[in-house]
Amino acid sequence: MKTVGGNGSVSDLPHVVIIGAGFAGLAAAQELGNTAVRVTVIDRNNYHLFVPLLYQVATAALSPADVAEPIRHVLGRYPNIGVVLGEVSSVDTQAREVSLASGETLHYDRLVVATGSTSSYFGHDEWRSVAPACKSIEEARLIRSRILSAFEEAERDGASDREALMTFVIVGGGPTGVEMAGSVAELARHALTADFRHIRPETARIILVEGGPRLLTAFPDSLADYAAKALERLGVQIMTNAPVERITEDGLTAGGRFIPARTVLWGAGVAPTGAAKLLGVPPGPGGRVAVCADLSVEGLDHVYAMGDVAACLGEDGRPLPGLAQVAQQQGRFLGKGLRRAIIKGEPLSAFHFYNRGNAAIIGRHHAIFDFGRYRMKGYPAWMLWAIVHVVLLVNTAQRVRVSLQWLWRYLTYRRGARIITTPVPPRGR
Amino acid sequence: MKTVGGNGSVSDLPHVVIIGAGFAGLAAAQELGNTAVRVTVIDRNNYHLFVPLLYQVATAALSPADVAEPIRHVLGRYPNIGVVLGEVSSVDTQAREVSLASGETLHYDRLVVATGSTSSYFGHDEWRSVAPACKSIEEARLIRSRILSAFEEAERDGASDREALMTFVIVGGGPTGVEMAGSVAELARHALTADFRHIRPETARIILVEGGPRLLTAFPDSLADYAAKALERLGVQIMTNAPVERITEDGLTAGGRFIPARTVLWGAGVAPTGAAKLLGVPPGPGGRVAVCADLSVEGLDHVYAMGDVAACLGEDGRPLPGLAQVAQQQGRFLGKGLRRAIIKGEPLSAFHFYNRGNAAIIGRHHAIFDFGRYRMKGYPAWMLWAIVHVVLLVNTAQRVRVSLQWLWRYLTYRRGARIITTPVPPRGR
Repeated sequence: MKTVGGNGSVSDLPHVVIIGAGFAGLAAAQELGNTAVRVTVIDRNNYHLFVPLLYQVATAALSPADVAEPIRHVLGRYPNIGVVLGEVSSVDTQAREVSLASGETLHYDRLVVATGSTSSYFGHDEWRSVAPACKSIEEARLIRSRILSAFEEAERDGASDREALMTFVIVGGGPTGVEMAGSVAELARHALTADFRHIRPETARIILVEGGPRLLTAFPDSLADYAAKALERLGVQIMTNAPVERITEDGLTAGGRFIPARTVLWGAGVAPTGAAKLLGVPPGPGGRVAVCADLSVEGLDHVYAMGDVAACLGEDGRPLPGLAQVAQQQGRFLGKGLRRAIIKGEPLSAFHFYNRGNAAIIGRHHAIFDFGRYRMKGYPAWMLWAIVHVVLLVNTAQRVRVSLQWLWRYLTYRRGARIITTPVPPRGR
Repeated sequence: MKTVGGNGSVSDLPHVVIIGAGFAGLAAAQELGNTAVRVTVIDRNNYHLFVPLLYQVATAALSPADVAEPIRHVLGRYPNIGVVLGEVSSVDTQAREVSLASGETLHYDRLVVATGSTSSYFGHDEWRSVAPACKSIEEARLIRSRILSAFEEAERDGASDREALMTFVIVGGGPTGVEMAGSVAELARHALTADFRHIRPETARIILVEGGPRLLTAFPDSLADYAAKALERLGVQIMTNAPVERITEDGLTAGGRFIPARTVLWGAGVAPTGAAKLLGVPPGPGGRVAVCADLSVEGLDHVYAMGDVAACLGEDGRPLPGLAQVAQQQGRFLGKGLRRAIIKGEPLSAFHFYNRGNAAIIGRHHAIFDFGRYRMKGYPAWMLWAIVHVVLLVNTAQRVRVSLQWLWRYLTYRRGARIITTPVPPRGR
């Protein structure tokens, strides 16, 4: 309907279809904005989710809208980009067609798959309902409701199960588990202290369970040690060498020990979404889609994969980690590359990841940053973490909102979003 | 556990139980804070809801946490007040006991019922699922998802039903319906304009349907006329003398006319919650609980009712309207009265309502205010409306958040919370 330039309809231009509006997909689309290329971005949600801050929604510090930005709003300024809200049901790489669950079919000239990752329970899908992960807004809201409801139940006169209600177990010693444990600890130790009469939230047990010998294996020893000490100072109990054997509504068994706990949160594993199957290619390392150095999918023409779903080998010959910065750099690289390839006929070059530093935040004044050569911890790392995350948010309004809420929380120790709005399913009693 | 003063345990003090933490219940509890009275506030939600701004959550302008404040946070500073999250299942006014659905029983010395109102479909409960009302956070979120999803569906290539998808009918010409219609119109005409490629959201039809001969019957003619003109300038079509006959997934029949519409919103009626039945008294005017001038329930000892659930007669001999300001004034009055009654043995006086002005907002620069003797409309009324509503929010953080979001929206016409997070049930096609 709307035209670019005025010389022809957008629908005559070469068509790039991008599946997924995460960090990778959105960056690629933006690079293709206002060019002589027609772009369609497909996502099952109408928003781009800033996953690195989602744990703050789960722990009542931020609201969903603070970390979710409507895709149409981000891309609305580019008349050559359309957005489709829908679920991809199949891809025909011969006919170059993407079919949606709603029945629509889109023809593409180039297809970019950036469908990300999902939480993985290592074959124990029965744990999913008792130990929710934090990968979507709905899950974050559910976790928030579960944590707050546990305190409410414990507050009841004559609550029989007070110890288990006031025990919070977080599974997984990676950045996700560490950040979640720190944030739950701060919620209990600071934000809720004045709220109850029969319980003292600051006495809640927060336990971080890790199957391997230490936390944060992606970080150097010195930083991981620092993080562990900072967590312990916050009152988080750390159990290493404790692989999870069983999770029920009554608690968790790990390393042969049963911990009575009514709230178990999962931060242990992620798996790529099923894009290899969708594309009809054999799964690559870790189930991800194997891609060449230029991010084209091995064995397919004009199909590309990037972000968490793609196994792109780094300089050390191992697949790059599933990080926002990897996805964003790949998106920019591929967006620029496709622009040149389609408009000027230039071949794609090889992607090189530039490590901007790997970070984890433990809590107030405590974070770690690993830049490879340099390392940073404590207050400066915490400041840098906050600045980087605010800058990375999609728009100015979110930056202002999140900064203000952080400032307010920093000054008062309070959390504004302590509302229970997702009904917590009865836990069998 | 915690004691007041140190001379005795809180549990030895006279016990006031307040059911409902709306404007009335919260105000009463605050007046009883830090006194030699034990107070328990029961609510089914863990938050106090600022209902007058809920329509802004439904139209993507604010987030739920901006209009919901944890009750424990508001009352946490008063060691003599406890909060119970629960649903009251029965009241025994002889034994002076309140029973909760969870099985707990609370003994009271004085009982205050402030359970508010709920949406009423005038005997057509089958309309509830097709035409949601906006009385809770869950409903507001559902309405937000429905409105945004309708535009998404209309945007689909070859959407067959585009006209019905882009028609939004609001039922009820009172303040609720007027505010909702104005806000939906502004969302379509301004906030969404750049977002779509196949549809033009500014061409959406927004229809306000009223059964009676004119809008805003609680306001003088001149103000109601002004509001109708302002709505029409925003592109809202007003249908008066059009009682609703039927609502289905395909549209609405009102005044003998069928309007194809996939989104119908209900702002037509409220009914008191079933407190009369709970207390075992005959329902008073409009199904509300009949109260004496001092807000005590007719025929019961030491039981009081206030807010939307109570039929308290005004100076004109008619029940006071279900407004936040009535509820809040009654709460303060009864809180103070009970404090004096319990501690000093003074009898309760008679409640007098002081009209602080009845307002409705139509949209940017347009609102009406009726102070009885004075009237105000247009820009000054709009400014006053905004100031009053910000001041009435429970805490400073909310005031700052809401003010900033309004300012930002005012300057940019954008709305930050345009996220679809409640799955919209399939509408039978």
